[in-house]
Amino acid sequence: MVERLLGGDAAALARLLSHVERGDALGEAAVDRLYADTGRAHIVGITGPPGAGKSTLTNALIGAFRARDRRVGVVAIDPSSPIAGGAALGDRIRMGEWHADPGVFVRSMAARGHPGGLAPAAADAIHLLDAAGFDPILIETVGVGQGEIAVAGASHTVIVVQGPGFGDGVQALKAGLLEIADVLAVNKADQPGAAEVARLLRDELGAFHVGGRTPPVLLVSAIAGDGVEQLAGEIGAHLAHLRDTGGLAERQRQIAGADVLARVDAVLRGRLGGQSGWGGTADELLREVAVRTTSPAAAAAVLLGRLAQ
Amino acid sequence: MVERLLGGDAAALARLLSHVERGDALGEAAVDRLYADTGRAHIVGITGPPGAGKSTLTNALIGAFRARDRRVGVVAIDPSSPIAGGAALGDRIRMGEWHADPGVFVRSMAARGHPGGLAPAAADAIHLLDAAGFDPILIETVGVGQGEIAVAGASHTVIVVQGPGFGDGVQALKAGLLEIADVLAVNKADQPGAAEVARLLRDELGAFHVGGRTPPVLLVSAIAGDGVEQLAGEIGAHLAHLRDTGGLAERQRQIAGADVLARVDAVLRGRLGGQSGWGGTADELLREVAVRTTSPAAAAAVLLGRLAQ
Repeated sequence: MVERLLGGDAAALARLLSHVERGDALGEAAVDRLYADTGRAHIVGITGPPGAGKSTLTNALIGAFRARDRRVGVVAIDPSSPIAGGAALGDRIRMGEWHADPGVFVRSMAARGHPGGLAPAAADAIHLLDAAGFDPILIETVGVGQGEIAVAGASHTVIVVQGPGFGDGVQALKAGLLEIADVLAVNKADQPGAAEVARLLRDELGAFHVGGRTPPVLLVSAIAGDGVEQLAGEIGAHLAHLRDTGGLAERQRQIAGADVLARVDAVLRGRLGGQSGWGGTADELLREVAVRTTSPAAAAAVLLGRLAQ
Repeated sequence: MVERLLGGDAAALARLLSHVERGDALGEAAVDRLYADTGRAHIVGITGPPGAGKSTLTNALIGAFRARDRRVGVVAIDPSSPIAGGAALGDRIRMGEWHADPGVFVRSMAARGHPGGLAPAAADAIHLLDAAGFDPILIETVGVGQGEIAVAGASHTVIVVQGPGFGDGVQALKAGLLEIADVLAVNKADQPGAAEVARLLRDELGAFHVGGRTPPVLLVSAIAGDGVEQLAGEIGAHLAHLRDTGGLAERQRQIAGADVLARVDAVLRGRLGGQSGWGGTADELLREVAVRTTSPAAAAAVLLGRLAQ
């Protein structure tokens, strides 16, 4: 199946994606074997407040990259509550318009409560699409949620999408989305207020990125298709910028770190729920914390020191 | 300040809480020194879907415990987006009714993006209230969000609050809240549907907890005060059950593990954002993942092995 995926077989890709989604041993073994063949795709995160039109813009970007003869992978991350679980069925349906195009592969995945980074299953899905030759790979957050930081941590280039409205949306952007944006897209540019939002964002960004690269702010209308071509161009320009400045290697290291951390987390959190602990002397350390002979911060310092050994 | 807190000085407690909220060195040192004096409080998590009336029920429970002459601490966790940040100002105001009672101490805290467990600052707030002699300590999740699992992981007893309505709320409960519930409270019992919801929940729980303790399902009306006394009684009964069965030590260990994990996470995530990595050979391992000579799963396995050494 691994050989067939590397040869571009979509059915093998779909089957392996189901295995990584279930988190079973076959999926894990496949990613382990394929991982050396990854690292070629440009990974582009698309995030922003609810209602900004991320899904429509993702669709429009697929079209723009297809027009450039790129094979486009899409992973839609549904940051549904770790409690609710479940994948975004509506999103699978929405993306159905690309079903007949073998140059587009769309997969929706639930985030399933690994909010320190992308769920290992979602990271594995990106690795599989990468190995299968899709480039770029668009990672889109669906709905409201905590997925933004995780998506940013898994991407080379982060597109923050903002609607034309003021109020809560702009507040949310100010509070944290601006910091992660490599490119800003003010969507629904045909609606009143879009130009004003773009102006405000440019002011904010200018204050932020003194001396360095200031993320461009583009007015787009995903539905009308206006500005989408320029956005695709800016996405490519950002990758070129990362290559030129040596920033790409640093992003790769950060992506790797977030990926590994999410896996360590998932295992440790799974063990916390059960009777068994973290294993070996770490268990003894946790028992000391439980009986108050070691403080949580002191125990954390010991474990962090061991990680670095 | 530490001595004054142990002596019951509310001003010292408030000041140290501000230090731990900022995550500064003084707060960390204080918790480290006080930690040996913690572990005496009964920690009670209060969670459930939005609109179930968690805040009103928390207020009613404060009253019930005050009537038993218990000193009650409350930490309200605002699981606001890791991006938005900021504490629940509205909640601070809401809890103002206990302002004049020295036997009640309420603090709202933002979760600030450590969703693997409670934010270290929130865990530290609980430790401070514990050291200051508050018992029980109620941890309440505010609003919608991902805080439920984190709160459950920090509590000896988890109260899941459900409203009288069917639909999404019951779905959400089925999907995961039932597993973490030690006691279920169907709130707004005077409204139609409450008894039916309670009956359905009892059926679900019976199927779930075959052979073990089945969590009681109580009908309560937080506003009218009906059933609140019984709920306070069931909370105490659950602690007695944990003591009798030896389950308390296991919960303490799990709470300690979640606390330590959140701290390890917070440090690692902070380092991922910067130029420096995890330190020592862990950095080398992440570089290997970045350049594709080691897979993320293999690197995670190495680090997990080192934690257990």
